[in-house]
Amino acid sequence: MKSFVNYEQNSDFSIHNIPFGVAAFNNEYIACCTRIGDIVIDLATLYDYGFFDEIEGLNENVFEAYTLNEFIELGKPVTNAVRLKIQELLLEDSKIDNDERTLEECFFSLDKVRMMMPLHIPNYTDFYSSIEHATNIGKMFRDPANALLPNWKHLPVGYHGRASSIVVSGTEIIRPKGQTKPADSEKPIFGPSKQLDFELEMAFVVNRHTEMGESISTSEAENAIFGMVLFNDWSARDIQSWEYVPLGPFLGKNFGSSISPWVVTMEALNPFRTSSPQQEPEVLDYLKFSGEQNYDINLEVYLQPENGTENLITQSNYKFMYWNMLQQLAHHTINGCNVEVGDLYASGTISGEDPNSFGSMLEVTWRGQNPIQLNNGQERKFIEDNDTIIMRGFAEKDGIRVGFGEVSGKILPAK
Amino acid sequence: MKSFVNYEQNSDFSIHNIPFGVAAFNNEYIACCTRIGDIVIDLATLYDYGFFDEIEGLNENVFEAYTLNEFIELGKPVTNAVRLKIQELLLEDSKIDNDERTLEECFFSLDKVRMMMPLHIPNYTDFYSSIEHATNIGKMFRDPANALLPNWKHLPVGYHGRASSIVVSGTEIIRPKGQTKPADSEKPIFGPSKQLDFELEMAFVVNRHTEMGESISTSEAENAIFGMVLFNDWSARDIQSWEYVPLGPFLGKNFGSSISPWVVTMEALNPFRTSSPQQEPEVLDYLKFSGEQNYDINLEVYLQPENGTENLITQSNYKFMYWNMLQQLAHHTINGCNVEVGDLYASGTISGEDPNSFGSMLEVTWRGQNPIQLNNGQERKFIEDNDTIIMRGFAEKDGIRVGFGEVSGKILPAK
Repeated sequence: MKSFVNYEQNSDFSIHNIPFGVAAFNNEYIACCTRIGDIVIDLATLYDYGFFDEIEGLNENVFEAYTLNEFIELGKPVTNAVRLKIQELLLEDSKIDNDERTLEECFFSLDKVRMMMPLHIPNYTDFYSSIEHATNIGKMFRDPANALLPNWKHLPVGYHGRASSIVVSGTEIIRPKGQTKPADSEKPIFGPSKQLDFELEMAFVVNRHTEMGESISTSEAENAIFGMVLFNDWSARDIQSWEYVPLGPFLGKNFGSSISPWVVTMEALNPFRTSSPQQEPEVLDYLKFSGEQNYDINLEVYLQPENGTENLITQSNYKFMYWNMLQQLAHHTINGCNVEVGDLYASGTISGEDPNSFGSMLEVTWRGQNPIQLNNGQERKFIEDNDTIIMRGFAEKDGIRVGFGEVSGKILPAK
Repeated sequence: MKSFVNYEQNSDFSIHNIPFGVAAFNNEYIACCTRIGDIVIDLATLYDYGFFDEIEGLNENVFEAYTLNEFIELGKPVTNAVRLKIQELLLEDSKIDNDERTLEECFFSLDKVRMMMPLHIPNYTDFYSSIEHATNIGKMFRDPANALLPNWKHLPVGYHGRASSIVVSGTEIIRPKGQTKPADSEKPIFGPSKQLDFELEMAFVVNRHTEMGESISTSEAENAIFGMVLFNDWSARDIQSWEYVPLGPFLGKNFGSSISPWVVTMEALNPFRTSSPQQEPEVLDYLKFSGEQNYDINLEVYLQPENGTENLITQSNYKFMYWNMLQQLAHHTINGCNVEVGDLYASGTISGEDPNSFGSMLEVTWRGQNPIQLNNGQERKFIEDNDTIIMRGFAEKDGIRVGFGEVSGKILPAK
């Protein structure tokens, strides 16, 4: 497939991608959009021009919206048809190649566009599905000989996170204040977190509602997942470690989480399917699945200090996940918990076996014991004020590249 | 104060109450409402008739809505003025006493009305703020000699719950299925929960938005709390105990929580203020507060088996709470976590010292060791299929009674 839009060979936004997002165009109006190369396309105007007229079930201009929810809710038959239609329109010699009016009104260069939060997220859950991450945490904070807790290999452990503080890439994050209890202090103290961290994650978006009491099986789950985003689950380790027993993470997490502005569809990721790590012991029936249900997605995290350049901190891959998305969604709903369109389900920190693939500062520096050396001569145990964390993700195979762009966030000093 | 509407002396819905809710009237339309005695009043029509014209800041008919959120968001100056105006209109010899049209169009007997979910809840948090409850759980599941964990007296422990599955009183709850690990089994097993429980709680509703990075101090918190509801945090103890380490409760809770249809304002509860249990050790500055910030609210739980009558299971009181609402909200936002209008913050199980005041079956039966004897000759360790749990709450002082009515829910067999 060759598009009439030119883009670099290593662009995340190839003709094979066609992700969805929401943008403010020329600071004048907001609409749903897609992207190819460095061109962002206003889908609302494209709809008005009649290019989606043939698509059954797309009876309203759902792209004239501040979020993708209404579009996503139409379900795969419609959203896939839209994606394929856009792909067709972007090919050389398509209907809109050389259509001056359409190109002028719908095609925008990146500098004319501000990416917005793409979703309204009714509910957000964070899993803990990387065996290497769970093992690292268990070694550090519990028992190195029994790092994994007894339930870990039997179910995808997860918890509810805070939906209100999920923000789009580029939003600055204020360092949280809170209670911590240093090892050498008898009482807890109060102040800005001294152990601010990122967590390298991905998250999937659900495209349907269910009723309470209804479950989504692993075989039904595939149809219920619209796409994925990059996810940075900012974490204040010192606040978290004091508060989290027995009810789990709370203020150590809920001050902010960041997502990429582009939601990449599962259909775009299909060529990059791969098998999962073998699950042993065998899982209960409701967690069984068939086929290759993992995805080979390269993940990178960079730290950019103020007035400095990017430093590669870690390189991981989504394929390391022990529990896959189908299992996560089946588990989440097996008790009848209802889901809503736009719900976000995050993977948990994605670590690999190699220390260079660990998905958090906590793991990379092993609780600060091995600081990271930056290219400006500084070192980091945790994230400092005015540092920017940038996560990137892309899949690549047989000359085809599909990526997420980035999710970035700068840490501002505590108020 | 005497109303022209007659009601029983022990009605929760006296002229001193004036709670807010949402109802379907005659199965024809939905509107925000209030209640006095056994009369439900359609506020949208009352607005249309001009009775709220004098209230500054009430420029739209926010009662023509499916939730109270728009009304609540107007803030205390407006919502208090509306409540006082309703109270005035309900007094003997008021403008509407003997106004046939208004009484006919706006006043409905209970049997013409179906109460709806009163709120859209963007975020839901559950605290763990009863020292007796936390101590009971610690004794049962950890160490009787050190029942409270080290952080408990320093901060109001809490976690994020699932907003999607909060339903209004009367909604049936399906027994959840899930993974459990019986003590005598080597592997986890799958099936309907065998330890289904209620948790007697109350929850408060927030009336404002904050930006990320902003905090609400204890002195600001009072102005940010619109009112309270009764809350039943249904819990599957066997699912919960297997899943909850290390990230907290998840599928053991998120299959359903029930709230009362009536939100009682903090102003109606003002006469019932009382002091809190003394907090020792002294709390950090951001958790300090002044004045009487607890409320004397009697709470009761009844179990009604199929074809049977109600059995009183426990009698507790909101005043037992160790951490108050101002502290909960100040703590929740001290790290900059943003709140949204309609957010619900639940207390955690409210237990007193006496076993007859414990707020869950788990505690009342002490893990099933002391089954409850029902008046039909049956006994209960936990909740059985087709049992209905009814919680009631009211405050009473100097001949004035203000109550919540009830939150009830029947357990249906697992699907």
